[in-house]
Amino acid sequence: MFAIKAARAFTCRPGIARIEGAYHGAYDWAETGQAVSPAMWNDPPQSLAVPAYRGMPPSVGEEVTVIRFNDIADLERRIAAAAPSLACILIDPMPSRAGLIAPEPSFFAAVEAIAKQYGILIVADEVLNLRQSYLGASARYGLHPDLIAAGKIIGGGFPVGAIGGRKEVMRVFASDSGKPLLPQGGTFSANPVSMVAGRVAMEAMTDGAFASLESLGDRIRAGLRREIERHGAAFSVTGAASLFRIHPKGKQPTDFREAYLAPGEAELMGRLSRHFLNCGILLPNGAAACLSTAMTTADGDAVISAFADFLSILEATPTEAGM
Amino acid sequence: MFAIKAARAFTCRPGIARIEGAYHGAYDWAETGQAVSPAMWNDPPQSLAVPAYRGMPPSVGEEVTVIRFNDIADLERRIAAAAPSLACILIDPMPSRAGLIAPEPSFFAAVEAIAKQYGILIVADEVLNLRQSYLGASARYGLHPDLIAAGKIIGGGFPVGAIGGRKEVMRVFASDSGKPLLPQGGTFSANPVSMVAGRVAMEAMTDGAFASLESLGDRIRAGLRREIERHGAAFSVTGAASLFRIHPKGKQPTDFREAYLAPGEAELMGRLSRHFLNCGILLPNGAAACLSTAMTTADGDAVISAFADFLSILEATPTEAGM
Ligand SMILES: Cc1ncc(COP(=O)(O)O)c(C=O)c1O
Ligand SMILES: Cc1ncc(COP(=O)(O)O)c(C=O)c1O
Repeated sequence: MFAIKAARAFTCRPGIARIEGAYHGAYDWAETGQAVSPAMWNDPPQSLAVPAYRGMPPSVGEEVTVIRFNDIADLERRIAAAAPSLACILIDPMPSRAGLIAPEPSFFAAVEAIAKQYGILIVADEVLNLRQSYLGASARYGLHPDLIAAGKIIGGGFPVGAIGGRKEVMRVFASDSGKPLLPQGGTFSANPVSMVAGRVAMEAMTDGAFASLESLGDRIRAGLRREIERHGAAFSVTGAASLFRIHPKGKQPTDFREAYLAPGEAELMGRLSRHFLNCGILLPNGAAACLSTAMTTADGDAVISAFADFLSILEATPTEAGM
Repeated sequence: MFAIKAARAFTCRPGIARIEGAYHGAYDWAETGQAVSPAMWNDPPQSLAVPAYRGMPPSVGEEVTVIRFNDIADLERRIAAAAPSLACILIDPMPSRAGLIAPEPSFFAAVEAIAKQYGILIVADEVLNLRQSYLGASARYGLHPDLIAAGKIIGGGFPVGAIGGRKEVMRVFASDSGKPLLPQGGTFSANPVSMVAGRVAMEAMTDGAFASLESLGDRIRAGLRREIERHGAAFSVTGAASLFRIHPKGKQPTDFREAYLAPGEAELMGRLSRHFLNCGILLPNGAAACLSTAMTTADGDAVISAFADFLSILEATPTEAGM
């Protein structure tokens, strides 16, 4: 919310562009365009700026431009059409709910070029993906945002959220010459417990901690793929660093629409999650699974063998799975 | 934010009405109309739905109706004009930044009557004023809201926010028959530490705890008024229960406009806050001062004598104070 507001205060424009299907929390403009479905993308005159709840002000939809991840032609066409009213392009470097799919370097280069051309800011949502490397996900994938939103791990388990950015942009919060362009404050701003816990957690996240999380992630992704191949199963795996997502798709999805679950696939993923739960593992359904520094290689191997068991069960009961 | 969204999901309308000058946090529709100033109310064609930051979408202002506290004629005129698009009337029973002024029972009766007439929900912002009594501020002042927003004390010092309401309205969050009309969730929803600390804090807030807070508040307000009278000073005091606010106004303000600080008055209140700080007391400037259960009558008397000292200093240097 405050990253979007900062982009508005800096540019004096109301609108935002965001990636189809990505999740960015509950601020109206950020959640619009998350729940896009085939009925919408198969009927092009329909707007993709789909409201997130009943009764959402229609004005919000008019202020949101929905773009496709890794699709440069779509990006250029839609941004050009909305440019005069766009404050920012909101982008999660590897949007979890949109498929946890790696960005193409050429896509981020195109995002940067068009943002520069039209004076639009880039807001990186690193709330989840900051955990991808010591410098976060933008740095890892070569995106140069004007503003970054962070959360989750930076509070050491306590409620937290933060934004940062280029000095020039962050000056919208400055109060040294009167009322700021964008006042910021709240009851729990700089909550002492969240701040101390967050600092300690961040200090524990050394280069070494990121490296071992990454090798555990690599081990799990490789193990899952090995099982898929061994069983000849119609699954695939995406993700990086401490994050992975299992898709009930033989062809690895390259964007949100390919990752979108048809009803039968959603049912199968529900079964997969319940199977993991029975094995003592919480596997998010339709979002990234996350590893933590407390996990060992044995925990990683337990993930792989839980999945292998599931594939064996599926082989034994193919019709129920709709395969 | 979620109380407003719930009202929209229930009514299928986008707009909200809110009290001029009241503070309700950082959600765009809730903060619009807070920073109203004499330049606006002295120039009636100007909208009172003043944006809270530069670049705020103009659409938000069009969806907000600003009404005056304790002014039934203004309420009826403005609500009637906007009714078909209003989801809710957002109302803090004793808005701190709008003056910490007691509601007239007839005003709340009028709010309820007009809300009922047009099918508009009443959302009580009890984030601050829940602390006014065991059942909160709405109960204390006879307002019957459809939804209540709470925060601050309910987390026992940890970050928290909550909403509650009539069963029928809260069903917008229900997921028992598919996707809810208003999906709700977030990383820190039901954060275990906030939940446990909040529960313990709420259990400590017995009827007896509220009663002693109230008598401490009564003692302080009476003491401050005694000092004002003794010094013949142009000050007044508002508030109730554990809350008070000192105004640099000889005539006790009855609404936001009367409580509004002219530049000289704002400067005087700045001096008062600095004086309190030198006495080891944080006195919010332009908002309610809050007492806590840890405070003793000696602490209360320290507040009164810090104020008495200030009035003596003022008497010695009248011109500097602009009086
Ligand atoms: C009456 C009222 N409503 C809402 C808020 C916003 O609460 P928060 O800062 O926790 O978002 C506040 C905070 O001061 C408040 O006093
Ligand atoms: C990428 C991303 N952005 C934003 C959010 C919202 O964060 P919060 O729930 O703390 O508001 C989330 C939460 O899951 C997220 O994954």
